[in-house]
Amino acid sequence: MKRTLNQDTIKDAMLFNQLVMQVSKALWKSTEKDWEQWVKPYDLSINEHHILGIAYQLEIASMTDISKLGVMHLSTAFNFAKKLHLRGYLTLSKNEKDKRNTYVQLTEEGKKMFLKTLEDYNPLENPLFQGAMPLRDVYGELPDFVELTALIRSIYGEDFVQFIERSSQEPASLKK
Amino acid sequence: MKRTLNQDTIKDAMLFNQLVMQVSKALWKSTEKDWEQWVKPYDLSINEHHILGIAYQLEIASMTDISKLGVMHLSTAFNFAKKLHLRGYLTLSKNEKDKRNTYVQLTEEGKKMFLKTLEDYNPLENPLFQGAMPLRDVYGELPDFVELTALIRSIYGEDFVQFIERSSQEPASLKK
Repeated sequence: MKRTLNQDTIKDAMLFNQLVMQVSKALWKSTEKDWEQWVKPYDLSINEHHILGIAYQLEIASMTDISKLGVMHLSTAFNFAKKLHLRGYLTLSKNEKDKRNTYVQLTEEGKKMFLKTLEDYNPLENPLFQGAMPLRDVYGELPDFVELTALIRSIYGEDFVQFIERSSQEPASLKK
Repeated sequence: MKRTLNQDTIKDAMLFNQLVMQVSKALWKSTEKDWEQWVKPYDLSINEHHILGIAYQLEIASMTDISKLGVMHLSTAFNFAKKLHLRGYLTLSKNEKDKRNTYVQLTEEGKKMFLKTLEDYNPLENPLFQGAMPLRDVYGELPDFVELTALIRSIYGEDFVQFIERSSQEPASLKK
C-alpha cells in the first residue's frame, strides 16, 4: 500500500493532523479529569476503573485483552490488576491452553464495586455531559461521533470498536 | 441552569459518557504517540512543540494563553517555556500593563525550528493520517469532526475552537 503524495495532500494531512492533535488533547484532558473525579470516591484510578469495566464486560479477560481494549501498556494492565486483586475485586489465573497469559475475572465484590460506580454516576456533576447538553437540545440526541468512530476503527480495528459500542449500548451493564 | 433528569436521561448520559471516555482515550493515546515520534528528532516534547506552535500562531502569547490553548497547567506551561528559553527558541518578558503575566515570543531560531518540524512532517510515517486515508477514499475528504468540535466548543468556549480552527486551516503557517 505504498503511496506517493503530492504537495496538496501533504498540506491537507498536516492540517488534519494539527486539528486532530489539538481536538483529541482537549477532549481527553477534559474526559480524564471527569473520569478521575467520578471514581476518586471509591479510591480507584482511571486505569483501575477501566480494568473493572473491561472484566465486567468480557466476564473473563486476558491481560492482552485489557491492554488492547484499555489502551494501556501490558505492564500497566498487570500492575493495576494486581492492585485490584489485593483489594479483593478480581482473581488472577492462568489458562490451561495459554499458560503465558494471565486471566482476570471479577469477584462478587468487584462486580458490586463496578456497578456501584455506575449507579452513583451523576450526569449533572459531569462537565462532559453538560457540554453535550446543548447539542442534545439542538439535534434531539447526544452525538454519536460517527466519523471519529470510523477513524478509531481504522486505527485500532473492528474488534476494538465493537467492544466500545457494546459497552456503550448494552443496558445489561446498568441496573437503572 | 439547574435541571432534573429522568432515569432514561441518566442512562443515556451514562452510555454517552462510556463512549466518549473510551473513544477519547483511544484517540489521544494514538495521537500522543504519533506526536511524540514526530517531534523527537528535534529533541522536543509534545508540550514544548505545542508551546512553539501557539507562540508561532499568536506571535505574542501570555502564559495564560498557552495554558488555556495548550490544555496544560500553568506550571507546566512555565516550566517548558523556560526550557525553550534556555535553548534560545523564545524570549520571556513582562508586559507593562499586566505585570503578573509572562509573555512568550519566538526568536528567529524558534520560528525556524517550528517551521522545520512542519516541513519535515511526513504523512506516510503518521499512523493517524494512514488511519484517515480510507475515510478520505470513501468521503472524498478528510473528516472534519463537526460533532466533536461542537462538543469542544461547548466545554472550552468559542475562543478555543477558533484558535484550533485557525491553526488547522491557515496555510500561512506552512511554507509548502
